[in-house]
Amino acid sequence: MSRLFMFEKPLGMRDTLPELFEKKHRVQSLLAETIKLWGYQFIETPTLEYYETVGAASAIPDRQLFKLLDKDGYTLVLRPEMTAPIARVAASKLLQDDLPLRLAYTANVYRAQRREGGRPAEFEQIGVEFINDETVSCDGEVISLLVSSLKQAGLDKFQVSIGHTSFTEELFLQILGTEERADSLRRFLFEKNYVGYREHIQALSLSSIDKQRLLQFLELRGGAEVIGMALDLIENEQGKQAILQLKELWDVLSDYGVQDQVRFDLTLVSHMSYYSGVFFEAYAGNVGFPIGNGGRYSLIEKFGKKASATGFALQLDRVLEALGEFETQNDLQCIFFSQERRKEGFLLAQKMQEQGERVVLQDISGVKNLDAFSKKFSNTIYLIGKAGKEPADE
Amino acid sequence: MSRLFMFEKPLGMRDTLPELFEKKHRVQSLLAETIKLWGYQFIETPTLEYYETVGAASAIPDRQLFKLLDKDGYTLVLRPEMTAPIARVAASKLLQDDLPLRLAYTANVYRAQRREGGRPAEFEQIGVEFINDETVSCDGEVISLLVSSLKQAGLDKFQVSIGHTSFTEELFLQILGTEERADSLRRFLFEKNYVGYREHIQALSLSSIDKQRLLQFLELRGGAEVIGMALDLIENEQGKQAILQLKELWDVLSDYGVQDQVRFDLTLVSHMSYYSGVFFEAYAGNVGFPIGNGGRYSLIEKFGKKASATGFALQLDRVLEALGEFETQNDLQCIFFSQERRKEGFLLAQKMQEQGERVVLQDISGVKNLDAFSKKFSNTIYLIGKAGKEPADE
Repeated sequence: MSRLFMFEKPLGMRDTLPELFEKKHRVQSLLAETIKLWGYQFIETPTLEYYETVGAASAIPDRQLFKLLDKDGYTLVLRPEMTAPIARVAASKLLQDDLPLRLAYTANVYRAQRREGGRPAEFEQIGVEFINDETVSCDGEVISLLVSSLKQAGLDKFQVSIGHTSFTEELFLQILGTEERADSLRRFLFEKNYVGYREHIQALSLSSIDKQRLLQFLELRGGAEVIGMALDLIENEQGKQAILQLKELWDVLSDYGVQDQVRFDLTLVSHMSYYSGVFFEAYAGNVGFPIGNGGRYSLIEKFGKKASATGFALQLDRVLEALGEFETQNDLQCIFFSQERRKEGFLLAQKMQEQGERVVLQDISGVKNLDAFSKKFSNTIYLIGKAGKEPADE
Repeated sequence: MSRLFMFEKPLGMRDTLPELFEKKHRVQSLLAETIKLWGYQFIETPTLEYYETVGAASAIPDRQLFKLLDKDGYTLVLRPEMTAPIARVAASKLLQDDLPLRLAYTANVYRAQRREGGRPAEFEQIGVEFINDETVSCDGEVISLLVSSLKQAGLDKFQVSIGHTSFTEELFLQILGTEERADSLRRFLFEKNYVGYREHIQALSLSSIDKQRLLQFLELRGGAEVIGMALDLIENEQGKQAILQLKELWDVLSDYGVQDQVRFDLTLVSHMSYYSGVFFEAYAGNVGFPIGNGGRYSLIEKFGKKASATGFALQLDRVLEALGEFETQNDLQCIFFSQERRKEGFLLAQKMQEQGERVVLQDISGVKNLDAFSKKFSNTIYLIGKAGKEPADE
């Protein structure tokens, strides 16, 4: 192979070396443990799916999909997220009895990147989908589980912002009249460009009352007090229904004791096009992107089953970033042996391993630089030469 | 999307539903636990690699590679195995200090299939690479770890067959004279077609003594007694060296106490072209393919570092198949609540979860068929109506 390529990885692809792997695995296990205790069942789906099935159903833009052709000329994609594959599995196999279904996953997802130093093209998500339960309790459980699992993983400073797709839709459509005009305004919110939003409103030909309403809309961020403000602002019935759902959601979240980690942000606009009700994003102060997000969606209907669901996905490396530095203890020991004491070494290692200690058993003649190698261990034991006593005699 | 495609997955791709996932995860954890206790460090590498780097270095045939193009027109492959990616990482980042290196992985690998009902196109491997230790102790450790981890995972009936690339190479070359003729004969061994092998030998223009040696070669399967038989058969020095290595290996394996699970099979021919010494395959009686395999290889030299290594890879679903049916306990409980007792339900669930119990907390109004849903749980608790007493009072 050419020297140019020898050590290269494709754009956005990463190796995870031992130290980082151990941290990642520990955090993943803690998150998964909470999810299991809440009764969610883990499943796996394939890395490759048909473009026509899962690629098209996904909310990820086409340009971010890794595509390839199978032997029959059909287009395959590397799954860009897990919600669409789980919708496929649920609709085809697990919703036959029309019961609530709690599924979970931990999986790598793939999104093609356009430039060096950008976002990763492969990253691990851990998430849940609570399927076929239409109650607000379902939404509340999923948000509470998000909060609880992050706390169990050791994160204390984070916030979940909760929005509602129909409230914004109804308010904007009522005031602006067309989807097109609503979309232009929504784009400022999506980019969190509030200056642009205000300027755009001033330039619109609207009554000063309507302009005032669109400006007041920006204030709809905070705790339970947002409910009343939002009800004052919306006139349309569907919009009011959305707010009454949020009111009930607040009660659920209070019962679950997570109200300190959540807040409403009705100005929230999601990049996931399939959300159809409550949706949310989790932020930790020091991380520039959401560490997780989720919401209620009706994607499963695309697979022929009438069921909605609420889910969340955490991006594991952002959760790690939010957790910051933490120590992993080096508890690895090493027994060096010379050939005649190999069996003694093995018996000692076995005894230690049975007590849960991590022990390398190393033929001393296999090591070129003994000093450097010894430094890798918290403790070293030498069984060299003929003068060994059996470890059982100790 | 078209109904034709709605539930379809690409050829050889599989979903893993909750029950199977739980078994798979349990076996994977037991294998990984043993590997960790022996001091191996887990790492991750990307799913996608450059074809020129890892695809070309891999021992998997080109027709089995999933290929795609990146935005600059370079060919990428979905990793078909983990040895080549780990060789890349070791050579580029982890072998700087020239010390022995014990790495491990659990990863999905990808091999395109040509027909329905064939082998899976994506499957999970768990394995180790013990890098940069030239001793026979290294080979012995890797084989012993393979045996120990399978035992820890609950498998009692299996056998590891051990061969040696240079012994067969030297013997065949010495008798047959050309690589081409040696290859034709090796192909019968690879297919385990011993009838074809015998017929092929009879048709060759060789002395009857040489024919006899090639037939005696087929007998080189068994325990320590194979060593003497093989030494009688080989005249060439390199071939003798190979057998002396196997003799030392037998001593190591005896010291590690795994001799009952291993046997020599010098007729073994590997499909992995990069092996350069001892190599082995693990079989369990009821599974038609090896459940794992490994050996010593010099692949790392392709990445510019002079180091050899010995590794193994277990194919997780074949290990599961070998383990046969085993029970997973349904210990999932459910608390049904009506709205006014939601908080009581949450506090009770939390208490149970803190004791490690898996508990679903379900709004009773979210379930259409309560009888069917209740059957999913080992225990159900109803907190319905106003007459609730606090769980703390119990």
